Amino acid sequence: KEMTRLDAQEIQSLKHQLDERYAKFKAANLNLDMTRGKPCPEQLDLATAMLDCVKSTDHLGEGGDYRNYGGVDGIPEAKRLFSEYMEVTEKELIIGGNSSLNLMYDAVADALLRGVAEGAGPWTRLEKPTFLCPSPGYDRHFAVCESLGIHLVPVQMNDNGPLMDEVKSLVASDPNVIGIWCVPKYSNPTGIVYSDEVVDELAGMKTANPDFRIFWDNAYAEHHLTEAPPVLKNILEACKAAGNENRVYMFGSTSKISFAGSGVSFIAGSETNINFIRKRIGFQTIGPDKVNQLRHTRFFQNMDGLKSHMKRHAEILNPKFTATLETLERELGGTGVATWSKPVGGYFVSIDAPEGTADKIVKMAGDAGVKLTPAGATFPYGKDPKNQNIRIAPSFPSVDNIKTAMELVCVCILKAALDN
Amino acid sequence: KEMTRLDAQEIQSLKHQLDERYAKFKAANLNLDMTRGKPCPEQLDLATAMLDCVKSTDHLGEGGDYRNYGGVDGIPEAKRLFSEYMEVTEKELIIGGNSSLNLMYDAVADALLRGVAEGAGPWTRLEKPTFLCPSPGYDRHFAVCESLGIHLVPVQMNDNGPLMDEVKSLVASDPNVIGIWCVPKYSNPTGIVYSDEVVDELAGMKTANPDFRIFWDNAYAEHHLTEAPPVLKNILEACKAAGNENRVYMFGSTSKISFAGSGVSFIAGSETNINFIRKRIGFQTIGPDKVNQLRHTRFFQNMDGLKSHMKRHAEILNPKFTATLETLERELGGTGVATWSKPVGGYFVSIDAPEGTADKIVKMAGDAGVKLTPAGATFPYGKDPKNQNIRIAPSFPSVDNIKTAMELVCVCILKAALDN
Repeated sequence: KEMTRLDAQEIQSLKHQLDERYAKFKAANLNLDMTRGKPCPEQLDLATAMLDCVKSTDHLGEGGDYRNYGGVDGIPEAKRLFSEYMEVTEKELIIGGNSSLNLMYDAVADALLRGVAEGAGPWTRLEKPTFLCPSPGYDRHFAVCESLGIHLVPVQMNDNGPLMDEVKSLVASDPNVIGIWCVPKYSNPTGIVYSDEVVDELAGMKTANPDFRIFWDNAYAEHHLTEAPPVLKNILEACKAAGNENRVYMFGSTSKISFAGSGVSFIAGSETNINFIRKRIGFQTIGPDKVNQLRHTRFFQNMDGLKSHMKRHAEILNPKFTATLETLERELGGTGVATWSKPVGGYFVSIDAPEGTADKIVKMAGDAGVKLTPAGATFPYGKDPKNQNIRIAPSFPSVDNIKTAMELVCVCILKAALDN
Repeated sequence: KEMTRLDAQEIQSLKHQLDERYAKFKAANLNLDMTRGKPCPEQLDLATAMLDCVKSTDHLGEGGDYRNYGGVDGIPEAKRLFSEYMEVTEKELIIGGNSSLNLMYDAVADALLRGVAEGAGPWTRLEKPTFLCPSPGYDRHFAVCESLGIHLVPVQMNDNGPLMDEVKSLVASDPNVIGIWCVPKYSNPTGIVYSDEVVDELAGMKTANPDFRIFWDNAYAEHHLTEAPPVLKNILEACKAAGNENRVYMFGSTSKISFAGSGVSFIAGSETNINFIRKRIGFQTIGPDKVNQLRHTRFFQNMDGLKSHMKRHAEILNPKFTATLETLERELGGTGVATWSKPVGGYFVSIDAPEGTADKIVKMAGDAGVKLTPAGATFPYGKDPKNQNIRIAPSFPSVDNIKTAMELVCVCILKAALDN
């Protein structure tokens, strides 16, 4: 029943009931963590045979001896496989180390220090270098910019991506607006997929600063929870079509395909961008860990291998997302106090609780032993203007733990809604 | 016989003889590379069993599941082993990825952008940020600075390290002088080891800029060619004793211990420095490749294991250095046209040819099929003021190839000396 339609007696009774349920949770001494988009051990186990893929007796690759220095770009096998994964040519791709976040950080830091390919120079020369942050979004993206002194401006999202009227007006009017963070597929945390129109508008929009870059973190390109996954339009193609081929840096990794800590990462973009970045990386290092790249290509073989591997991930993740969504529906369905995402891929469920209550809900859940991502974390500077978004990460805990944690979360949301 | 004592006829005859020898080399269509301090395959083979050290059936470490995210500092096993290697406490150390050069680059770039711990702010605020470059030195160190727009000032070296009167006067007088590159043990390329006095002077000298940092690349800490290796004074201890504990960043790696491309790297320094750097790395990445760290600690076990491993490296390298030095002595001994280093560790032999001839010698050798490190490469901006230094890297080629290549190099040196 909708909460707003309850009469005084019903409210009193519900309150009592919720207090009792909350007290029971508290007495249970829970210690559950729903904070981080981390693969669970069973997911990691899917790829553990990769550890046996390069042995002392069999370590040579197509390009020769991968134990030695060199190969800034990545090994040919990896360029072949992951250019297909990233939907670019091999010349539009560099294979990095174990962290795509590191590739992003370095791209931002380098743009501040030295500027971008064919650009006007260091972004530090701008009066107030500014990134647009479609929000809720990925806290670590925002933290990269914040740690480097870049100003953050939140932009609202809908089911098609960032609100493009806001974006277009901001980038067209202010040369300080130099970048935008995007998780275009199964967006962190709302799970939405950018529409073709949004991709085209991002690629084609007028920017006051010609050095403007889109940081396109396609972290969940093959991370489907459905048999018929949505298709994301290729933004590099869209940028080329619009005559802005240098506008986008694309990122990806196998962190949630192979191992979160020992995967391989990618940066892709126009040849001009990639040549510029390769040159810088050539000053940073004599080359990436090529042996680990070989482990990956031997294990996955090709895109079919990678895709069927991701189906096994989905088999593990689907019951966890189902448990999350079923609990939300059972406890909150029809109450009108909250809305939540029903993602078909990615790592998160995003809940919008009543305005002004997210921090209280997170605290209540924490007091009863369920750790949630801090309220506001998914917004620039950690400030959710409506104080209503809660990010749920169901991948790591067990289904039973998710059921328990989510029931508590719902109780906390209902309590907060009643008190509101 | 000393070349200066030859009479006209002897010179003519020597010239004829050298021209004939050179022509023979040219006719042989050699294709040899003496440029890079790269381990040879036999050296890499010493560690190849490491590829079998972490298997799918046996991948858990002391800290749990190393396949997942986290552990910015490094795994406890690696902190224990490599803090001993770096001669610091575990709190004074971070284990990085496969490239210590990357740790150096990032330390410089970050200092430019954000400054250093307890510092006055970004180094870009300086009028002309400047690094001192003891030379000949490591070209990639200089290139890091050059690529980031830092001004380079060469400083001469002797057998004890950089000429400290020069260094002290430069750092004391100019607040733009913000760093110095040092390869303190088996210096690249001269092979010298910094004396205790030089270490103490670097640690204790007055600097006009309190944010001044020593970039101490101890790349060859255990890379001995002798049974009784020299001992390098611990500069972090020296800095602490002098009340300048934040002055030094120490670097190291297993690139020339395990695999050049798939090793692990280290940055060490005061806890203040390391806490500052760890915080930045925490924005760059969710953690290093911990599985590869586990491979290393399982393979080496402890410092005794690492040291005995390095003795096996020496067994491979010693004949190559001997071939290099014997050829130099046989061909150039007593001629007075060149001097060269006789290193007891590291990766290089450094030759000083007659002034003004290094570029010609490198070209002559190249024309006859032996690639040498470009003349000047070991100096800032690639400019050897005396145009006399030639860096020989004997680790990669076979002993026979080294003998051939070095004989040609000597012929070229003699030809250049005669023409001089």
